[in-house]
Amino acid sequence: MTTPHKLALIGFGTVGQGLAEILLAKGDALAARYGVQFQVVAISDLLKGSLYSPDGLDLAVLLELVRRTGKLEDYASLWPSQALSSGWDSLRTIRESNADTVVEISWTDVQTGQPAIDHVKAAFESGKNAVLTNKGPVALAYRELAELAAAHNVQFRFEGTVMSGTPTIRLGQRVLAGCTISEIKGILNGTTNYILTQMESGQSYADALAEAQRLGYAEADPTADVEGWDAAGKAVTLANVLMDGELRVADVARTGISGLTLADVEAAKAAGQRWKLIARVWAEADGDASQRAPGRIVRASVRPTRLPLSHPLAGVSGAVNACTYTTDLLGDVTLVGPGAGRMETGYAVLGDLLEIVRNT
Amino acid sequence: MTTPHKLALIGFGTVGQGLAEILLAKGDALAARYGVQFQVVAISDLLKGSLYSPDGLDLAVLLELVRRTGKLEDYASLWPSQALSSGWDSLRTIRESNADTVVEISWTDVQTGQPAIDHVKAAFESGKNAVLTNKGPVALAYRELAELAAAHNVQFRFEGTVMSGTPTIRLGQRVLAGCTISEIKGILNGTTNYILTQMESGQSYADALAEAQRLGYAEADPTADVEGWDAAGKAVTLANVLMDGELRVADVARTGISGLTLADVEAAKAAGQRWKLIARVWAEADGDASQRAPGRIVRASVRPTRLPLSHPLAGVSGAVNACTYTTDLLGDVTLVGPGAGRMETGYAVLGDLLEIVRNT
Repeated sequence: MTTPHKLALIGFGTVGQGLAEILLAKGDALAARYGVQFQVVAISDLLKGSLYSPDGLDLAVLLELVRRTGKLEDYASLWPSQALSSGWDSLRTIRESNADTVVEISWTDVQTGQPAIDHVKAAFESGKNAVLTNKGPVALAYRELAELAAAHNVQFRFEGTVMSGTPTIRLGQRVLAGCTISEIKGILNGTTNYILTQMESGQSYADALAEAQRLGYAEADPTADVEGWDAAGKAVTLANVLMDGELRVADVARTGISGLTLADVEAAKAAGQRWKLIARVWAEADGDASQRAPGRIVRASVRPTRLPLSHPLAGVSGAVNACTYTTDLLGDVTLVGPGAGRMETGYAVLGDLLEIVRNT
Repeated sequence: MTTPHKLALIGFGTVGQGLAEILLAKGDALAARYGVQFQVVAISDLLKGSLYSPDGLDLAVLLELVRRTGKLEDYASLWPSQALSSGWDSLRTIRESNADTVVEISWTDVQTGQPAIDHVKAAFESGKNAVLTNKGPVALAYRELAELAAAHNVQFRFEGTVMSGTPTIRLGQRVLAGCTISEIKGILNGTTNYILTQMESGQSYADALAEAQRLGYAEADPTADVEGWDAAGKAVTLANVLMDGELRVADVARTGISGLTLADVEAAKAAGQRWKLIARVWAEADGDASQRAPGRIVRASVRPTRLPLSHPLAGVSGAVNACTYTTDLLGDVTLVGPGAGRMETGYAVLGDLLEIVRNT
């Protein structure tokens, strides 16, 4: 017996298409194993248009439309029999569709977190869960959004905001339940880790950056990655979500890698060490670091750090990400996995959806 | 508001005392954070005696008794006011106490899995959940026990059987839900990893083994560790629990490390490699490896393996354990953490208990 769980996708770019492919390929297996059938009932995308069908849209048709015309509203011509509405904007889709969960994957300004923040609020206010992969809203407004979700008795999930589908948040929040986390150290930005790995094999910073841009790891303006802003946003998320911090991005002591030279890299190598851009979050405690309480301060930094080769994070090469949690009962636990990617981030959404279903 | 959750501890050795210390130190924090109050209502230990008090025993008194006299039945003299029964054997404690969950941590024969298997069965048959840290019963009888638990609508948890409290089972079973695991490679035995790490710095196998014995990592008869039996049992657990295998320990192609010489270690080093005792589980698939189905075969091996230094498991040194899951949607995800220890295994039980409470 399977229960349907209805989804509205706000945005249908790379992540949304990855999710649709996963649901298409695995829908039957998920139904058999977890007893749930995910149904996409609505999509609203600024460029591709929007569709709503309360009984569910055909994922294969949607993916085919993106390949053919890029216009979702041609759906009716391929699949004419359904009760369809089209042209709804994102807020109407969120408020008026019959979705159980809103998957917020729209193009969002990382500085303001908009429009994703407004989308998530509208979801909660209309009694719907929200899953997010945009890191801005969580870095900027985690506490406010979490409280709004709790007030409306719905769930707020955002695994994809740190290390894509690698379950960094769920490991810290759920699987290490009962442990107190006193420190987190992570390689949270794949672009800079790729550049540093290239520099180890003798490439200059400028050449390694150009290579990263050529491979699509780095953007034309690489500032967000190389100056540590991206890692700082993720550090804030880990601090506030897993350690009950109250940090803003501006509170993170931040140094990027653009000042590192080949000579620095060689000097570390000669000393049996390796440079990594380490995001670090720690509690300066006079109390239990797992509790939000007066007197305990959570701080964060992002900076290039020389690690001995024996350190678990030193061996993490290329675009891979990793995160070490220092806990009271288990000591150090380290999770290593992908930090980006279409299917990987699509999976982040699926993992969150399965968690929502389990907790509903 | 907190809900009580009552526990019967079958065995009160290292792990049980570790758990009692954790509950004593963290009881209030757990109540505040998770809304549950764990109460030890019964203990039955072959050597220390047994106690039952339906409203709960005082953990501080129990720990003090172990330090002072080693006899639990002196409890009444220290804490005379309670309604106490004593002298119940393990099966009576399991069947007749008012515990919600039985924590099976008795001394158990790893070859037969007894008496733990009978304890767990008795728990399920009397409608109680069971948490286990003995690896024998899960390696020998996972399927039978899991089916019995399901038939009685109770939970069966055993995080501590692989990598102690490091959440190897929960990561694969729950956090990677939705992914299909096609292969698992692990360093699952800390003793042999310690010996191999010592050999890298020039110690002979015999000297490194003697050192491991002196430090308490290896037993007087080290066969179970150095010949790979311990790792093979854990491989069977991972195969059957996470990949729906049907393996027995005898099915594991197994080679230990006792034949490795310093010359072998040096040869690997010269080639930029490192020996690790790798437990490997893989699906020879003609289907979805996450589904138990005819035609799909899960196999396992344990053998010393030369890894390039860049491999995520190559950098795992000393008594630390690690496990790499190869998945369809995330590629490789690696978890590194402690593989043994009093508090670490005590935490394995706590993590399982919190999971039981969440799923009740």
